[in-house]
This record gives sequence, structure tokens and C-alpha cells, in this order.
Amino acid sequence: DFDYALENDVKPAFGRSDESLNRFLARGMILWGPEVTQILDEGRLLAETVKNPESIGFRSLVLAGTEKSGKTSLAAQICKSSDFPFVKVISPEDTVGYSETAKSMALKKAFEDAKRSKLSVLFIDDLERFIDYHPVGPRFSNLVIQTLLVLLKAPPPHGHRLLVIATSPEGSFLRDMGLMRAFGRVIDVPRLSTADQMINVIGESNIYTEDQLQTIEHKLRSFVEGRTFGVGIKDLLELIDSARQCEPEYRVSALLSMIENIALNLF
Amino acid sequence: DFDYALENDVKPAFGRSDESLNRFLARGMILWGPEVTQILDEGRLLAETVKNPESIGFRSLVLAGTEKSGKTSLAAQICKSSDFPFVKVISPEDTVGYSETAKSMALKKAFEDAKRSKLSVLFIDDLERFIDYHPVGPRFSNLVIQTLLVLLKAPPPHGHRLLVIATSPEGSFLRDMGLMRAFGRVIDVPRLSTADQMINVIGESNIYTEDQLQTIEHKLRSFVEGRTFGVGIKDLLELIDSARQCEPEYRVSALLSMIENIALNLF
Amino acid sequence: DFDYALENDVKPAFGRSDESLNRFLARGMILWGPEVTQILDEGRLLAETVKNPESIGFRSLVLAGTEKSGKTSLAAQICKSSDFPFVKVISPEDTVGYSETAKSMALKKAFEDAKRSKLSVLFIDDLERFIDYHPVGPRFSNLVIQTLLVLLKAPPPHGHRLLVIATSPEGSFLRDMGLMRAFGRVIDVPRLSTADQMINVIGESNIYTEDQLQTIEHKLRSFVEGRTFGVGIKDLLELIDSARQCEPEYRVSALLSMIENIALNLF
Amino acid sequence: DFDYALENDVKPAFGRSDESLNRFLARGMILWGPEVTQILDEGRLLAETVKNPESIGFRSLVLAGTEKSGKTSLAAQICKSSDFPFVKVISPEDTVGYSETAKSMALKKAFEDAKRSKLSVLFIDDLERFIDYHPVGPRFSNLVIQTLLVLLKAPPPHGHRLLVIATSPEGSFLRDMGLMRAFGRVIDVPRLSTADQMINVIGESNIYTEDQLQTIEHKLRSFVEGRTFGVGIKDLLELIDSARQCEPEYRVSALLSMIENIALNLF
Amino acid sequence: DFDYALENDVKPAFGRSDESLNRFLARGMILWGPEVTQILDEGRLLAETVKNPESIGFRSLVLAGTEKSGKTSLAAQICKSSDFPFVKVISPEDTVGYSETAKSMALKKAFEDAKRSKLSVLFIDDLERFIDYHPVGPRFSNLVIQTLLVLLKAPPPHGHRLLVIATSPEGSFLRDMGLMRAFGRVIDVPRLSTADQMINVIGESNIYTEDQLQTIEHKLRSFVEGRTFGVGIKDLLELIDSARQCEPEYRVSALLSMIENIALNLF
Amino acid sequence: DFDYALENDVKPAFGRSDESLNRFLARGMILWGPEVTQILDEGRLLAETVKNPESIGFRSLVLAGTEKSGKTSLAAQICKSSDFPFVKVISPEDTVGYSETAKSMALKKAFEDAKRSKLSVLFIDDLERFIDYHPVGPRFSNLVIQTLLVLLKAPPPHGHRLLVIATSPEGSFLRDMGLMRAFGRVIDVPRLSTADQMINVIGESNIYTEDQLQTIEHKLRSFVEGRTFGVGIKDLLELIDSARQCEPEYRVSALLSMIENIALNLF
Ligand SMILES: Nc1ncnc2c1ncn2[C@@H]1O[C@H](COP(=O)(O)OP(=O)(O)OP(=O)(O)O)[C@@H](O)[C@H]1O
Ligand SMILES: Nc1ncnc2c1ncn2[C@@H]1O[C@H](COP(=O)(O)OP(=O)(O)OP(=O)(O)O)[C@@H](O)[C@H]1O
Ligand SMILES: Nc1ncnc2c1ncn2[C@@H]1O[C@H](COP(=O)(O)OP(=O)(O)OP(=O)(O)O)[C@@H](O)[C@H]1O
Ligand SMILES: Nc1ncnc2c1ncn2[C@@H]1O[C@H](COP(=O)(O)OP(=O)(O)OP(=O)(O)O)[C@@H](O)[C@H]1O
Ligand SMILES: Nc1ncnc2c1ncn2[C@@H]1O[C@H](COP(=O)(O)OP(=O)(O)OP(=O)(O)O)[C@@H](O)[C@H]1O
Ligand SMILES: Nc1ncnc2c1ncn2[C@@H]1O[C@H](COP(=O)(O)OP(=O)(O)OP(=O)(O)O)[C@@H](O)[C@H]1O
Ligand SMILES: [Mg+2]
Ligand SMILES: [Mg+2]
Ligand SMILES: [Mg+2]
Ligand SMILES: [Mg+2]
Ligand SMILES: [Mg+2]
Ligand SMILES: [Mg+2]
Repeated sequence: DFDYALENDVKPAFGRSDESLNRFLARGMILWGPEVTQILDEGRLLAETVKNPESIGFRSLVLAGTEKSGKTSLAAQICKSSDFPFVKVISPEDTVGYSETAKSMALKKAFEDAKRSKLSVLFIDDLERFIDYHPVGPRFSNLVIQTLLVLLKAPPPHGHRLLVIATSPEGSFLRDMGLMRAFGRVIDVPRLSTADQMINVIGESNIYTEDQLQTIEHKLRSFVEGRTFGVGIKDLLELIDSARQCEPEYRVSALLSMIENIALNLF
Repeated sequence: DFDYALENDVKPAFGRSDESLNRFLARGMILWGPEVTQILDEGRLLAETVKNPESIGFRSLVLAGTEKSGKTSLAAQICKSSDFPFVKVISPEDTVGYSETAKSMALKKAFEDAKRSKLSVLFIDDLERFIDYHPVGPRFSNLVIQTLLVLLKAPPPHGHRLLVIATSPEGSFLRDMGLMRAFGRVIDVPRLSTADQMINVIGESNIYTEDQLQTIEHKLRSFVEGRTFGVGIKDLLELIDSARQCEPEYRVSALLSMIENIALNLF
Repeated sequence: DFDYALENDVKPAFGRSDESLNRFLARGMILWGPEVTQILDEGRLLAETVKNPESIGFRSLVLAGTEKSGKTSLAAQICKSSDFPFVKVISPEDTVGYSETAKSMALKKAFEDAKRSKLSVLFIDDLERFIDYHPVGPRFSNLVIQTLLVLLKAPPPHGHRLLVIATSPEGSFLRDMGLMRAFGRVIDVPRLSTADQMINVIGESNIYTEDQLQTIEHKLRSFVEGRTFGVGIKDLLELIDSARQCEPEYRVSALLSMIENIALNLF
Repeated sequence: DFDYALENDVKPAFGRSDESLNRFLARGMILWGPEVTQILDEGRLLAETVKNPESIGFRSLVLAGTEKSGKTSLAAQICKSSDFPFVKVISPEDTVGYSETAKSMALKKAFEDAKRSKLSVLFIDDLERFIDYHPVGPRFSNLVIQTLLVLLKAPPPHGHRLLVIATSPEGSFLRDMGLMRAFGRVIDVPRLSTADQMINVIGESNIYTEDQLQTIEHKLRSFVEGRTFGVGIKDLLELIDSARQCEPEYRVSALLSMIENIALNLF
Repeated sequence: DFDYALENDVKPAFGRSDESLNRFLARGMILWGPEVTQILDEGRLLAETVKNPESIGFRSLVLAGTEKSGKTSLAAQICKSSDFPFVKVISPEDTVGYSETAKSMALKKAFEDAKRSKLSVLFIDDLERFIDYHPVGPRFSNLVIQTLLVLLKAPPPHGHRLLVIATSPEGSFLRDMGLMRAFGRVIDVPRLSTADQMINVIGESNIYTEDQLQTIEHKLRSFVEGRTFGVGIKDLLELIDSARQCEPEYRVSALLSMIENIALNLF
Repeated sequence: DFDYALENDVKPAFGRSDESLNRFLARGMILWGPEVTQILDEGRLLAETVKNPESIGFRSLVLAGTEKSGKTSLAAQICKSSDFPFVKVISPEDTVGYSETAKSMALKKAFEDAKRSKLSVLFIDDLERFIDYHPVGPRFSNLVIQTLLVLLKAPPPHGHRLLVIATSPEGSFLRDMGLMRAFGRVIDVPRLSTADQMINVIGESNIYTEDQLQTIEHKLRSFVEGRTFGVGIKDLLELIDSARQCEPEYRVSALLSMIENIALNLF
């Protein structure tokens, strides 16, 4: 059973926080490998450090990884497990089509809101969208980056404690944008890269018989062998969705060919 | 008989949707090869996946191909066949001369409109015009791209289901603009590249005798031989129009020489 | 006698159209070679295609050529001969010093005006000035290009028919600006490049005796020999004007030396 | 006697015109060589062509040359000698610190003013300042260039006649800015490059004795020998001014060393 | 005992100044090596020079160093020890998201405020944020740089005395931005680079036994050997915070591995 | 005795002018070498030329040199010695943080003010700050350069006389910015480069005994030997200020080591 044991989590004092996180967690978490647990553990440790009155009460963390690797869900889970009484969420949907000045102001306000409480976590999803990053050029909003560089350094008022958690593309993005050192900690979110990991997820879908699963595992194993290979968890769940729509007799081959397609496109 | 059997399609609940699509379908579809059916089939499968309550109710598809290859008509046909109760169309004509901010807002509004219904398809024609793409530079509106990147990731409200279908230039455009992975699925729309395919279309025009058609087929076959060659369906229909205007005795040679011109210009 | 037989042309229903074209045609046309007739013929054929109810009632044509080669006059002549009841003219003089937004709006309005009539021709002179083209960079208004790309693809309302005729610099300009495929047809307007062609024009001026003309022809023939050479009709008419001002004894040599200057400057 | 015979010139109908030109002509003209007469003659011929009713009544001319070579004075002299009843002058002083839009509008207005009269000459001094030209980049106002390109092609109303005369840096400037072909005629204004030419000017100053002039001539002759060398007339007059300020015994050597400095700086 | 003897410092006349500095000094200073004392001494000497009525009463100093090396605290300490009656502080938090014009005005106002008193020190933290510096391009606000270049040269009114102290990234930043010579004096703030220096800091934390400290020292010594290595004081204090959170048995190894990580990342 | 004999200077008619110059001259001039006298002499000669009614009453001069070489003081001294009844001063402090349009207008107004009087000198300090020059790019305000290029060519009204004196970085700056030829005369302001020159200045400070001065001279002589070396007068005076603050026994070595530092930094 791979379901992650979230039921022990204490609810935050204000229901509103939970709500804002729950939309990122609606489809549940599958512990497809020890990598997942490790990320969640490290997040929890950092949350505890921030709470410790002997420490500096101001830390930041970014989950960086390729598209559809599960960054947002993992970050939301860490926020939720941190059990801080105040959770502030800001995501690019809140600022669609905003000018860079408006985006900068929205971020400033999110930090101010978070700092007003004694113990807060601030979740910023998809940093690259706030800075309007585009690889051609590259183009990006220097104004928003400057704003982030200042906000990520400015401690909350005396006695207040703040943890900032963000998601972003892989580390090279952070380095190129000059944001690498602005975060106290950078964690890489990996894709699934072994047959075992993928079978863990495919098995959860309940659309294949045990026999079919064994066929899939066998084929995946020989395909993966000797290749660098990776599928994001979000990609894999979409492929399974598409396979479910196929006639039963094609479901195994359809899934396998779609996985291969993704692998070949990306490598 | 190559006429595509659309008469079985159920009309959507609101006539207005039909209307907005019909202007793209006024001149009918010719099934010039299995490529056409395959694209329409894949579109229908994706529409069904979105409808399936076990799946993620939010998917996107882009038809990418060279100019005048029939992208718009094929996309409109998929939208129509999907038989979704709500169809929202946004095309560059709606935003001629708009600033990038206004274009961004128009797209945002189109997504919002589509998300308001329980089951919608949103059709965006000619993505490259919304992002003001120009190959010199290249120039493009990063603001509109950022808007698209956010909107194409932001799921509809709980219980609502949305399929997004767009058209764009060939895949390299999508890759260069950083939009490739923003769509769940990219389908290439091919040009006609064999004598058979072209004869299928030319035959439909009723301006040539059977003898003339055989001459044309023979000449095309020897011309195409050993070349990479391609004519968009929209181009071919225009050439036939011009040939119709010529004196009867020149119609065969006029058409052939115009087809050769296009082939030589482009390769 | 090289005067072009325009007297048979039927006047359009609204005198105003004629007027707007006449200012481009005030100095008359000289049929200096078959190239001229051919361009006018091709224009007339396209106009007929647009009128044919079996065809797509929306076509576009651009006359492309070096400076002062007679593009504007030829395009105006095609418009006039098309005998469409509505002629809309838009030229850069109408938008001197406008912002790119204002230029874009002026073009949009010109298309709208033209589409309001059942059968219209829209004449756009000097495309390069609307897009503020400058070879250093190159600089150009992407906004206006985007506007043109949309307008040249957007068909008139059902039952209305529209022919668009434009002038522009040589084809490489159109290709570089990404406008080449936006027009259904591109015709190159050549310069005069043989002694015969030039004598046809010089003879019309009535400032040289038959003997002088023979001297000029002889000298031109030996000069042109073995060179790629070209003089625009508008240039040549200006040179003749300057020669007329000289003392009679210098008129032959003055004209010849000016023609040589132009040829040497340009090649 | 090198004083240019201007006294025969007929005054224009409106004194105002004369006035606006006179400020450019206050210090008189020295005919330091046949180059000067030739330029003035060519200007006069063009003015006559414009007046001739058989010709196109719209021509343009630009005097191009290095700094301080006398362009403005020569152009003003041509305008004055043309004896047109209306003279419109526009110079960069009129538009100091204007935005490019305001500069563009000022030029448009100048052309409109000039076209309102039946027979006008329009004088535009220092084209490079209207287009805000700077060699680093290069930077320039494309808006103003576009405006010039349109205005220089747009003929005056039927029956009106217009001659445009402008000054600019050397020809390479015009070519790089895409303005070369916008003028019907380009004349190069040379610098003084021989000892004779310079002595013609120095002699006019009345600060040297005949003996001193001979010494200067001798020294200049040996200095110029075998070098490409050039001094603008405006530069030379300034050097003579400075020499006048020196003690009498240093005046010869001071002038010579200043001339050498300029020559060495520039070559 | 490494605590820095600040208790002898005379309080400035206006408590407000103290307050604004204290937030930078809340966590105390550890004299981890003679480098620290030397920087503080040099700062004090400059402050005395400014006070001396025989000297120019206007000097400036910038502390330049890598991230988290302690620049801000050292600069604040110099300001405090200078014992000037007026201390003006301006930091990037005061201008988050400001336009470059607004940032320029804020700096101008800070200088004006400081110049109003007879004897002032002006502290500008993180110069790079005022000029919106980003290494890609590089991008920066030339307007703010121009403002700084003028303000850093404009002496206070007669009889008034002003010391300006700023912090910035390493010297190459100052040189690239053209600010190097704008400051009278540039002092480099080093990172900790020997085991001794680090043990001085780790010992202060009171979380390790003497035995553990000896183990750490031993391991660090062998690790540092033969490498160029550096850890900022602010980094080191954060690592110690994180180690404190670990189970006692892992605290030594956790700290060591984190120090190694930083060293390997940065070199 | 190196004090410059300014006491004979006639005061200008309006005390205000004196005042505006005096702030640049508060700390006196030291004639550290013949270079200084020569610059002042050349300035005075130019002022006399402008006054001479036989000459063109409009000339300009720029003092160009490295940072802190004494440009501003020398220029101010020339203005003062010129003894013109009206002196207009414009310095970057007057336009801190202005937009380029506002800077352009400020310069225009300064010229207008100066031209209103019959005999004026206009002093523009630090040209590079008005044009917002930054070496990266380079960046600069083309608008302000265009304004300067026009203003420096536009003569005062008939009968009025104007001398313009400006300061700027070294000549390469003027050349790169296209301003070199805009000034009638460019004078280079050198740094001190010999031991004698430096001793002249150090001796004036009254902080060293004769013995100490001899030691310094000896050491400088051997240091300078065989090197290209230079210290600006303003730099040197600052170093002497700092040395004064040291304990007596270190004053000689402190000064020498600071001079060496500057020499090594810059070469
Ligand atoms: N172990 C897991 N980690 C992360 N997500 C998981 C895991 N198991 C299941 N999921 C599901 O996978 C999906 C991950 O999507 P998520 O939006 O978090 O990815 P992402 O990397 O943020 O994608 P994007 O690059 O598009 O932002 C969610 O639907 C989530 O419920
Ligand atoms: N099988 C087909 N697929 C697509 N279009 C077809 C087909 N058969 C006939 N047509 C006709 O061909 C034309 C295709 O034009 P359409 O506008 O769809 O092309 P497009 O690729 O979108 O062109 P553009 O690049 O200009 O946007 C339409 O008139 C349509 O009716
Ligand atoms: N056969 C011809 N074709 C075109 N123009 C002709 C012809 N015969 C005479 N002309 C005259 O030559 C001139 C051509 O000028 P026109 O403005 O058409 O050239 P253009 O190529 O548009 O020039 P520009 O590059 O300046 O726009 C007109 O005055 C026209 O009356
Ligand atoms: N033959 C001549 N041609 C031109 N100018 C002459 C001549 N003889 C004397 N001059 C005098 O020389 C000066 C030429 O200056 P002018 O302003 O015309 O030069 P310019 O080339 O326009 O300079 P700039 O490059 O600064 O615009 C005037 O004072 C004019 O009176
Ligand atoms: N000798 C020291 N020098 C500087 N800071 C010290 C010293 N000893 C202890 N500290 C503490 O180390 C921290 C240094 O942080 P500070 O903000 O000054 O670094 P910084 O270089 O300005 O960092 P940043 O690059 O993020 O601006 C402070 O918490 C300070 O109290
Ligand atoms: N011979 C001299 N020439 C110039 N300045 C001198 C001389 N003797 C003494 N000084 C003093 O040296 C200082 C020169 O500073 P000044 O501001 O003129 O230099 P600057 O080159 O303009 O500097 P910056 O590059 O900072 O503008 C002044 O304080 C002046 O009083
Ligand atoms: Mg995400
Ligand atoms: Mg289409
Ligand atoms: Mg034309
Ligand atoms: Mg001039
Ligand atoms: Mg700091
Ligand atoms: Mg100065």
C-alpha cells in the first residue's frame, strides 16, 4: 500500500489555509520510491528548524525539477505537514497577464501577509511564471527577480518566524537567473526512471490485471535497460488516463508505446 | 465518394456554437488520404477521454503544420464532432491590432468563458498571431506566451471538464517558443505529397474530363517521383480555382505548371 | 504607337474611385516591352477569378520591384481595368508620422471599408512604409506585419468578393519580412534593361530628332552589351526631364552620361 | 577677386524668405576653387528644371560632405539664387530636444507649408540631426526616416512645383540610413585640399603681408605634397581667427601648425 | 572570549539612528580572525579623517564581498562606532518594486537628509539592488548608477561633513558597473577559509562538547588542506542552526557534510 | 611659492557669477608644473578671441582628462579669469535623476540664458553625466547628445558673443560619443607623473619636515623610474589628508604606500 499517511497531520488553526493547499493535493500522493519520502522528510526538518526559538526564524526552500515531475504536490504536502498556523499561497493563476510591476507588488503583498503572523509558511508556485521567464534570449522580468532577491533576504519582524517554499524548473534555471543563492536550500525533484517505480504507479490505477502488470514490468525493464530515461509522475498519470480510454485489448501496448514516445522525445 | 460523413453528428445544445465553427467548415472536407481520418480519430478519442469521469478532465491538443495545409478546418471538425455542449472560439481576427496586454486579456477571458460550462471545448486558431510571432529576431510577445503557459496548466473548477484545441505552424515553432510541452498532445498536419492524393482532390472539382484527369495523374506521378514534395490542401484548391478561369485548352497545363511552381518554390 | 488603350475601360459606378486612382496615372503609361502587357494581363485574369462565383471570392496580389520601376502605376492600372464597382486606396501619405498602432488601425479600417461592398478592390501602395521598414537591423513594425498577416487571411463576409493589390520592394523584402506567403500571388516588376526598351521611352519625349535617337540607340547598345543593367521607368523619365533643360547641343551626351551614372551606381 | 556676384539676384516676393536664408550667408562666400562654382551651377540648373512646365515639378537635392566643409552656406546660396517666390527653411535649432514624433510632425508641416505655394523651395539643414543619428549602434529615429521617405516621394498638388534642398554628412551616411535613393540628386561638397585653394582663403583675411603669404604657400605646398589632406572652409576660417589673436611674429607659424594639426588628426 | 567590545561606544545624540542600525546587529559579532578587526579599524580611521577640520569633509567607503560574508553587519558596526550624531540608513527593503526613477529619488533624498546635519554618516546597504543588477546581459539601471555617480561626487554644504558607507558584491561588480572609482575606498570582506576561523565560530554555538569540537577541527583541517575554500559567516551560522536540529549523534557529521557541500558547490 | 596669483582678476559685473564658480575653486590651485599654466593660458587666449569683434563670436572648449585630474577646477579658473560679465554654470547636480528629456531641456535653457547676454561664458561640468554615459554597452542618452550637437553649432544672436567651456573624461570618450568635433578645441588635462610634481604638492601640505620630504622625494624617484605612472591632483590631496590622520611616525610610509597602491591599481 503506497498511500501516504497524511491522516495524522494536525489541521492548522484557520481552515482557509488548508483549502488553498488542498486544490494542489486533490489527486493524492503515491510513494513511488524512497526519493519521495526523503524530500518530504527534509521539508519537515526545515519547518522544525524555523520553529526552534534558538535558530534564525527565517528560511527558504525551493523544489526544482523538470516539468510534470510532481513539484507542486510535494511542496504543497510539505506546507501542509509543517502544521504552521498560517499558510499563504501565491500562484501564477493569481497574476495572469499582470504587468511586471503588478506581479512584483503581488509578491510583496504575499510576503507582507505572511510576515504579519507569528509563524507562517509562504508557498510560491512556479517561480518562472512570476518572472515571465522565456528561454529565447533569455527573456525575464528583472524587476520581479530584484523583488524576489530583496524579499527572500528581508527577515520577518522580531519574534515572527517565516518559512518560504517555492517550486521552479531545474537548478540550471535558478543558477542562470541568479536566484540559486537566494534560497537557503534547493532540492531536486526527480522523474521516475526505473521499471519498479513506474509499476508502483501503474498498479495503483486498477485498470490492469496482475498478468498485464507483469507483462508491462517485463517490457519496461528491457526498455529502460542501458538508457537514461525519465517520466514525470504527472505525465505518467496522464498516459494511464489515455490508456484507460482504449479498448481493453490495446491498453497494454498503448501505454507502453506512449511511455516510449515520451522517453524518445525527451532524450 | 470522398465526402466526409458528418451528417450523423449530434448538434450541440446551443446553436451559437455551431455557427462559430461553421464559418471554418463552409467549403467542406475532402478525405484525400488516411492521414486525414487518423487526425480526426485521434481528436475524437481525446474528446472522449476528457468526458470520462475517471480521468483528469482537462486536456489540450495542438494541430501543427505548414501554411495552408488544412489545420483550421481539421481542428474545427474535431471541435464539432466532439459534440460538447459548449464551444468557445477565439481567432486572431478578434484581436487585430490589439496590444499584447489586450491579447492576453482576450485569451484569459476565452478560458474563463469556457470553464464556466461543465463540458467545454475551446478552439484557438493560429496561436502564432496571438503571440505576434515574427521569424526575424525572432520577435514574439512574451506576455502572451506567459499567459498561455499559465492558462494551459490551470485546471477548470472541480467537476468541470475542458478540452483545448489550437492550431499553429510546424512543431519547430512550438519548440522554439517554449510551448511544446504546454500542450498535452501535438499532431502534425501533413501536406499532400503523392499524385494519388492530389488526384483525389482535383477529381472533386468537376472541371476536368476523365481523360484529362489521367493525363494529369500521369504527369504528376513522373514529376513527384524522387522528390520530396508537398502542396497544402488550401493551396491546391486555389490553384484549381485559377485553372478554372483559363481557356479550356490550357486548363491541364496551367494547373500542372502552377503545382510545379509551388513545389519548386518551396523545396 | 505605344499608348495603352485604356479608353475602352468601363467607368466604375462611383466616380470617387476613379479619382483616387487617377493621381497615380496622371502621366500615362508607355508600353516599353511585352513585360508590361503581361503584368497587366495577369492582373486582369486574377480580377476575373475573384468575380467568378464558383471560385473563392478573396485573392491578393503584390507587385514587387526595385525603386522607380513603375510599380504604383501598374498596380493602379490593374485596379482601374478590373472595373470593380468599389475601389479603396490606402497610401503611406495617409499615415505620415503615425504610430504603429495608428497605422495598424488605418489598414484595418481600409479592409473593413472594402469588405462592406459586394465587389471591391483594395489598393495598398508601398507596403514597406506601412511597416516602417528600415534595412539597418532590420527595423520594422511587427505590429503592422501581424495586422497584415491577419487581414490578408480573413475572408470578406459571405457573398462579398475582395481583391487586394499591393506594391512593395523586391521579393527578398517580402521573404525577409515573412510576408511572401501572405499574398496569393507575387509579380516581379522589371526595370528597362535593353537599348530597344529605352529607345521606346526616349522616343516618346519629342526632344530628340530621328538622327539623335539613332545615335543614342547605337551608344546604348554598345554600353549595355555584356552588362547586367537596369533603369526604372520613373528614373528614365526624370533623366529625360533633366536633359530637356540642357542646351540642345548637349542633350544627347547629357542623357547618355546620366544613364551610365545610374547603371554604374547600381551595379 | 573671389567675391561671389550675388548682387544680380532678384529678391523673392516675400522678404521673410530672404531673412531666413541670410543668417546662413552672413559671412559671405569665397570662391576658393572651380568646385564651388560647379556646385552652385548644378543647383541653379535643377531649380530651372523644376520651373519648366514640361517637366515633373518636384525634385530634390542633397549636399553631402564632411563637417565644416561649407554645406549649409552653399545650400542657402542655391536657395537664394533659385529666385523662387517662397522659401521655407527648417533647421535642427527649431526642434532641439523634440521627441521623434514632434520632429516628424515639424518636417511634415514644413512640407505642407512649402506645397501650399505654387513655386517653393524647401531647405532642410542637417538631416542627421532630424533623424537623431549617432554612429554608435548606429542609433537613429526610424520614425523620422520613414516620414522623410514618404514626404520626399509625395508630389505637391497639381500645378504646384517644389524643390527640396537638404544638407547631410558624407554619402556613406545617406547610404547606410537608406536615404540615398530618396533624393533625386546627391552632390558631394569637398574640403580644401591644395595649397592654392587655402591661399585663396587665407589671402582674403588681410592679416598677412604678401611676404608672409608666400612663406605660407611655400610651406603648405611641401606639407600637402604626397598626402591626402583636407580642411573644411569653416575650419580654416576659424584657424585664421585664432591666428589673428596671436602676436604678429607668431601668426604664420601658429596658422601652419594648426592646419597641420587638423590634417594629422583627421588622417 | 571573542565577543566584540562595543559597550564603550558613545550613544549618538538621537536614539533613532541607533535603532535603524541595531536591526543589522541583533545577532552580535564574532571576531573570527584579525581580518575582522582590521576592517573595523580602517572604518574608524576614515570616520576620524572626516571629522578632522583640516581634511576634506566628504569621504566614501564600500565593503565589497561575496554573499553572506558579513558585509552588512560590519558596515553597520563601523557606522555605529563612528559615533556621528546623525546616521541615515537606506536599504533595498525601502524601495522594493520601485521604478528606477523612484529608486533614484529615494537615494537623492537619503543624501539630502544626511547633508542637512553637520556631521552625518549615510549607510547604503546592497548597492546592487538599488541598481537592479542582474548578471545576464548584464542588466542594471543606468539611471540609478548615474544618480550615484553624481551624488558620490557632490560635497555637502560648506562646513558640513559626510561619510558614506555602502555594501556591494565583490570588486569585479564595482569595476564592471563603473562604480569602482566613485568610492574613495573599497575594502574586501573575506570569507572564513581556515579550520581555526571556523572553529572560532562553531565553538560559540554551545551545541558541541570539547571532544566533538576537536573532532570537527581535525576533520576540517584535513578537508581544507590544499584547497581554496571559503564559507561566509552568515552561511556558517545557518549551517550550525540546521545541525542543532539534528539528533545529537548526527550533529558532528551533519555539520561537516553541509560545510563540504557548500565548499564543493562554490569551487 | 606655488599659489596662483588670482588676486588681480577683475570681478565680473554680477557677483552671482563669481559665487557659482567659487564653489569649484574653494580649495585653491597649486601650480604643480608648466602643464597647468599652459592650460590656463590657452583658455585665456580663446576668451580673448571670442571678445575680438573681427572674429566669429562663438567658440567652444572642452577640458578632457582622467578622473580626479583637476579638470573642474581648471575650467572654473579659466571662466573666472575670462572676466566675462556673465557666467552661466550648469552641473550634473542640477539634474540628478532627471529624465533625458528634462536634462536636454536644462541644457537648452542654459544656452538660452547665456545667449541673452552680450558677452557670456557657459560652463558645463561633467558632460558624461548629462548624457548618462555608462561604458557597458555603452549606454548613453542619444537625445542629450543630439541636443548638444545642435546647441554647440547654433551661434548666439547677431552681436552677442559666447564661449562654452566643458569638462569630460579623456578624449576617447569624446570620440566614441561622436562629440569630438562638436567642440572647436579639446585640451587634455594630465595627471602628475614625476616625483618633482608630486613633491610640489606634498610640500604645500605642511605636515612633513624637510627631511621627510627628502625621503619621500627619493623614494618616489626610484619608484617612478621606468614606469608610466600617474596620480590625479584630487587623488593626491585626498591621500595627503589620510596620511595626516596617521600617527606621525607612519605618515611617510603611509603616504608612499597609498601612492604606490593607486599607481598599481591603475596600470
Ligand atoms: N509522489 C508524488 N509526488 C508528486 N505528485 C504525485 C505523487 N504521487 C501522485 N502525484 C500526483 O501527480 C501529480 C503531480 O502534479 P504536479 O502538478 O504536482 O506536478 P508539477 O511538477 O508541479 O507539474 P508542472 O511542471 O506542470 O507544474 C498530481 O496530480 C499529484 O496528485
Ligand atoms: N481534408 C481536408 N482537410 C482540411 N481542409 C480541407 C480538407 N478538404 C478540403 N479542405 C478545404 O481546404 C481548406 C483548408 O483551409 P484551412 O483554412 O483549414 O487551412 P489552414 O492550414 O488553416 O490554412 P492557414 O495556414 O492559411 O491557416 C478549407 O477551405 C477546407 O474547406
Ligand atoms: N509602362 C509603365 N509602367 C509604369 N509606369 C510608367 C509606364 N510608362 C510610363 N510610366 C510612368 O512612369 C512613372 C512610374 O512611376 P511609379 O510611381 O509608378 O513608379 P514606382 O515603381 O511606384 O516608384 P517608387 O519606387 O518611387 O514608388 C509614372 O509617372 C508613370 O506615369
Ligand atoms: N565657398 C564657400 N562655401 C561655403 N562656405 C563658405 C565659402 N566661402 C566662405 N564660406 C564661409 O564658410 C562658412 C561655412 O560654414 P557652413 O556652416 O556653411 O559649413 P557646414 O559644412 O554647413 O558646417 P557644419 O558641418 O558645421 O554644418 C560660412 O561662414 C561661410 O560664410
Ligand atoms: N565578524 C562578523 N562579521 C560579520 N557578521 C558577523 C560576524 N560575526 C557574526 N556575524 C553575524 O553573521 C551574520 C552576517 O550577516 P550579514 O547580513 O552581515 O552578511 P552579508 O554579507 O551582508 O550577507 P548578504 O550577502 O546576504 O547581504 C549576522 O547575523 C551577524 O550577526
Ligand atoms: N593645479 C591644479 N589644478 C586643478 N586642481 C587643483 C590644482 N591645484 C590644486 N587643485 C585642487 O585639486 C582638486 C581638483 O579637483 P577637481 O574637482 O577640479 O578635479 P576633477 O578632475 O574635476 O575631478 P573629477 O574627475 O572628480 O570631476 C580641487 O580641490 C582643487 O582645489
Ligand atoms: Mg507545478
Ligand atoms: Mg488556419
Ligand atoms: Mg510607388
Ligand atoms: Mg551646416
Ligand atoms: Mg547584506
Ligand atoms: Mg570634475
